[in-house]
Amino acid sequence: MMTKIKVQPLLVNYKTLEEFKRFKEYGNQELAMFEDLESNIVENDSESPFFGIYFGNALVARMSLYRVSKKYDYYFTPPQDYLELWKLEVLPDYRNQGYGKALVDFAKSFKLPIKTNPRINSHGFWERMDFHKAHYEVERDRGENPLIWLPSGVEERDISE
Amino acid sequence: MMTKIKVQPLLVNYKTLEEFKRFKEYGNQELAMFEDLESNIVENDSESPFFGIYFGNALVARMSLYRVSKKYDYYFTPPQDYLELWKLEVLPDYRNQGYGKALVDFAKSFKLPIKTNPRINSHGFWERMDFHKAHYEVERDRGENPLIWLPSGVEERDISE
Repeated sequence: MMTKIKVQPLLVNYKTLEEFKRFKEYGNQELAMFEDLESNIVENDSESPFFGIYFGNALVARMSLYRVSKKYDYYFTPPQDYLELWKLEVLPDYRNQGYGKALVDFAKSFKLPIKTNPRINSHGFWERMDFHKAHYEVERDRGENPLIWLPSGVEERDISE
Repeated sequence: MMTKIKVQPLLVNYKTLEEFKRFKEYGNQELAMFEDLESNIVENDSESPFFGIYFGNALVARMSLYRVSKKYDYYFTPPQDYLELWKLEVLPDYRNQGYGKALVDFAKSFKLPIKTNPRINSHGFWERMDFHKAHYEVERDRGENPLIWLPSGVEERDISE
């Protein structure tokens, strides 16, 4: 059976925020979105940095994706806009069915370099997605374990330069 | 029984790196230190960003602490150098004996603001240490859940400005 997996932008509304509670990586970002909605700082159904996959009516996978300006690019050569990806997560019952890969493929479709700071124990997945470890540098990376993906024509910056 | 707890800088050497393996948050940073030592990029016993506490000959608690330049300060008013703290960790058998607090007090002794991005479930500890949640902003914080500590005379930056 082949099922078409569709990645879609997630809008800021109470339904989305309620669904986010089922994900393990729930933190300040979600709480701030909720508070902004409650206090009318953001409108209902405004854009969020999240993308997700629904199975029926239920959100079963998501990631946050943010375009970082070239001005702040310390990872790539030549310096350029890149995507930072975080909170990639598939709910337990829906794992190993291609949802994680579908999200990553969606991110890659922008043809920009991608940086992520994965959770412990997810390195096998990221390797299969063709990500590799950026050379660690304390001043830049601090507590992070950055992994990067390079589209064609882009190289990792040589930080010893 | 009162025991004097002594926080000390940890030098990059094979003994320290071997002890780091006992800590849960072991990642690229430690591996890069090991590789730098192996390939003579850093000398034996050179400085590391880690501080720790020994109980007898064993390292039982540690943290990484890095001074971020005023130029990169997006958290405080007035803008100033601040300390970023990560990988604060006390080995299981040594918890609830003041080692974590001793490390945080050491960091506070520099009288600079401190930022940390704590692990899930450690918020109670950070509250007791007088840290509070920074207002989350996606462009700045992305996947982080920043907590900050303010010395007297320093305020959190109003990011809505």
